[in-house]
Amino acid sequence: MLKSKCDSVSMNDETEQLNCWLDTMKSMICNKFSSTAPLLKVGNVPSPEELMEKLGGLNLDDNGSTPTEMVNMMKMILDYSPNTQHPLFLDKLYASTSPIGIMAELIIATLNTNAHVYNVSPVVTLMEKRCIDEMCKFVGFVDGGGFLNPGGSQSILTAMVTARNYLLKSIKHKGMVLSESKPLIVFTSAHGHYSIDKGAMVMGIGLDQVIKIKAPEGKMDPEELEEKIKKSLQDGHQPFFVNCTAGTTVLGAFDNINEISKICAKYGLWCHVDASWGGPVIFSKRYKHLINGLANVQSININPHKLLGVPIQCSVLLTYNKTILSENSLNAQYLFHGGEYDIGDFTLGCGRRADGIKLYLCWMYFGTNGFAAKVEHAFEIAQYMTMKVKNTVNLLMVQDPSFVNTCFWYLPSDILKNYTKEQIRDILNDNQNSDREHLFKRLEFYTSNIHKELQSNLTIMIDYAPIDRLPKFFRIPFVSFKVTNTHVDFIVNEIVKIGMKIEER
Amino acid sequence: MLKSKCDSVSMNDETEQLNCWLDTMKSMICNKFSSTAPLLKVGNVPSPEELMEKLGGLNLDDNGSTPTEMVNMMKMILDYSPNTQHPLFLDKLYASTSPIGIMAELIIATLNTNAHVYNVSPVVTLMEKRCIDEMCKFVGFVDGGGFLNPGGSQSILTAMVTARNYLLKSIKHKGMVLSESKPLIVFTSAHGHYSIDKGAMVMGIGLDQVIKIKAPEGKMDPEELEEKIKKSLQDGHQPFFVNCTAGTTVLGAFDNINEISKICAKYGLWCHVDASWGGPVIFSKRYKHLINGLANVQSININPHKLLGVPIQCSVLLTYNKTILSENSLNAQYLFHGGEYDIGDFTLGCGRRADGIKLYLCWMYFGTNGFAAKVEHAFEIAQYMTMKVKNTVNLLMVQDPSFVNTCFWYLPSDILKNYTKEQIRDILNDNQNSDREHLFKRLEFYTSNIHKELQSNLTIMIDYAPIDRLPKFFRIPFVSFKVTNTHVDFIVNEIVKIGMKIEER
Repeated sequence: MLKSKCDSVSMNDETEQLNCWLDTMKSMICNKFSSTAPLLKVGNVPSPEELMEKLGGLNLDDNGSTPTEMVNMMKMILDYSPNTQHPLFLDKLYASTSPIGIMAELIIATLNTNAHVYNVSPVVTLMEKRCIDEMCKFVGFVDGGGFLNPGGSQSILTAMVTARNYLLKSIKHKGMVLSESKPLIVFTSAHGHYSIDKGAMVMGIGLDQVIKIKAPEGKMDPEELEEKIKKSLQDGHQPFFVNCTAGTTVLGAFDNINEISKICAKYGLWCHVDASWGGPVIFSKRYKHLINGLANVQSININPHKLLGVPIQCSVLLTYNKTILSENSLNAQYLFHGGEYDIGDFTLGCGRRADGIKLYLCWMYFGTNGFAAKVEHAFEIAQYMTMKVKNTVNLLMVQDPSFVNTCFWYLPSDILKNYTKEQIRDILNDNQNSDREHLFKRLEFYTSNIHKELQSNLTIMIDYAPIDRLPKFFRIPFVSFKVTNTHVDFIVNEIVKIGMKIEER
Repeated sequence: MLKSKCDSVSMNDETEQLNCWLDTMKSMICNKFSSTAPLLKVGNVPSPEELMEKLGGLNLDDNGSTPTEMVNMMKMILDYSPNTQHPLFLDKLYASTSPIGIMAELIIATLNTNAHVYNVSPVVTLMEKRCIDEMCKFVGFVDGGGFLNPGGSQSILTAMVTARNYLLKSIKHKGMVLSESKPLIVFTSAHGHYSIDKGAMVMGIGLDQVIKIKAPEGKMDPEELEEKIKKSLQDGHQPFFVNCTAGTTVLGAFDNINEISKICAKYGLWCHVDASWGGPVIFSKRYKHLINGLANVQSININPHKLLGVPIQCSVLLTYNKTILSENSLNAQYLFHGGEYDIGDFTLGCGRRADGIKLYLCWMYFGTNGFAAKVEHAFEIAQYMTMKVKNTVNLLMVQDPSFVNTCFWYLPSDILKNYTKEQIRDILNDNQNSDREHLFKRLEFYTSNIHKELQSNLTIMIDYAPIDRLPKFFRIPFVSFKVTNTHVDFIVNEIVKIGMKIEER
């Protein structure tokens, strides 16, 4: 056990303790942060049972622990957690943060305050408002408003509730049943995130009332959307909310916001854009066209904790009109004494972390150009990866990426012997084809087994996903600024090597 | 402008940057943390306009900023934010955290991972589960489960949704309207937190369907509760959820959980305990009797970020049965591959911060006895404060505290000349009394104006609140471990001094 010098600091001198711990942990934290540190490689992601044993059963005693015991536990947390700072952590839609991000979290922790009312968080409030106002400019909301939420699901739920409170006023007080509401209907693409479903479930709208519009190549079909809106009106239902996705979770596709927002306007529906993942393209002159039409929608959510590397959690909700957020206000008098800077009144919660600090500090440090560079770098890497996959015999793209997600299968030799890549794709898309089931099974087998092998080595951390009726495939979102072409080469080689090894079994 | 040595670190060496910033900021952070640092005293909490000017307009440029500029901005955040570590920050139900709390946040920031699935957060997941299991033991849930949420409101909403999904199964899929649901009815005390209302609003139940049961001295009246349940059944409504409060926001009162849970059982209603504030008494042998009967309820939420000093945000939701949480599951296949350790599947969101780390580390460091000591210290100070108020001619307790909130008025001399303290309380409680309006206005005048004066000095930061039909009063929750009797003496003297000064105007 690593003996900590902090044991000799008086328990009563908390400042000296903090000072000593910051000193002691600094090198460990920098070491973990360092991009050259390998991923957890000790065989595998330990099973819960193995890990629990390594952690000594995670005791919780009546009596507390010494600084030495704490330092050793903190070291174990760092040692046994995957290193999201590593360029080959590509498992999820978030990855590394930055030194300024970590410093921002340290400051938030030191302040330990709450972003509900101005008087306890004056700087936080101004920083949050400043970022919201600036993002509204990028989006084109002239009189827009918004605030930060603990995650995209909360932003989306808030958008749905705000839309309902605004469009169907009696429900806020009377509820759906007593206001004799028609069944409310929500639309989203078949590739939209499940937080729309969770929102509808939470709101008592019901999962069945979330109409999934087909999404060829990941993009919601506007014609089918309009048909389904008409149909729901004919059925005597109450369509009220359409969710567009800007950057779908799996394929990274962008819905046609311009066209969809026009349909929404025609039928008086609230148009929301879930840009949790793809939203940061607003900062890039080269790619902002992907998200054209934003100024015509009613609300947008963007998660800077994904592609922009702001520390988790940081989710922005923007509305086209700032006063509309008071639809959610309950004016709790013990807390809110009437200040327009008391942002908490507009949220669905009460207290909130001071996340505005980290969004502001990251933006200030990197500048808008720095945010754009992160986005553009991700595109470059995804394009390089696509080229590599296309030039690799054993790999097949699911489709050409429109964003920074690359999706592909490993193709074993027996499949390659009998079909061209073109044919494989056609067969997978053809439910009538008699070869489909065989192909489907072979591809899923290789995806699962290569993934299992990768999990046990953890030289690369990537995930797989299903979509529509296709066999599971690898999905690599190039979110980390630290990934280079060399890493891409390594990924491709590694996957092919493992695939071939499995073929030999 | 303070010149930072980090300017000379290569922009490309992020690890060295982190190292340099940790060094540079360490003394500033320790200084802010130090309990002897005065509150922000530069006149007042600056107005948004003044503060914006001090912060140089919070620029967000195309180009980024230098380390020196960043360090100066970080220093300003620390300088212009109230110091929640200060023993006289008594404005809200949270205050100082601890060195281990801050270190835990630093580790969470370094990992920058997400607590939705085990494979990206193995240690976090085990720590969260360990704390939940241990808290279930304290509560008496033999087969209980739960998880952490970003705040009490989210925990309460999750409890309400879980209850509805479990008791009224068809609503999850069909929604309230198509499942021809009766109007759902929620019960809480007149002193319950407004997050119950927000929950009912979000869920489409409607604010009018939250029945507020009268709460003499802050405690929900069980007889009225039962009457109102019967009444709602007679009306053809569907009562389903009763919220008990353990530690009300303003008075700190505890509902009679034993009695209320029996009524719930009789009518088949879900009994929830909002113990956001008072929950930590479970750790104190001396005070856990306040919350007797917990083992008979269906769910409980406790916020360790309040009285236990775990960094904000940290809210625990516990359910009597762990499998019941899968009522909220949607099984998103791109994310969840079937692991029972993938906690995110049970939440209303998707991603979550790795807050389990800080709850575990704080518990490990302080031990259960250390948590109990925090609770008991708060009680001691509140009792001392009560004694001081009672012994001070110009102050009047609203009622004797049953927890750690002390609520009191300043009484100006003209009032004291004409009435005894007993009489004042009687008059305020008597709507028919002709002196009531005059007394009411005088007391509100002093509360507001003393508060305004305190805000401009910021030697003490406290808040005021209204309740029922009483004039606004000061509410001091003794949440900080750092408050001593000497601080209490100072508070009492300061308030009386300011009150008298106002009288002389």
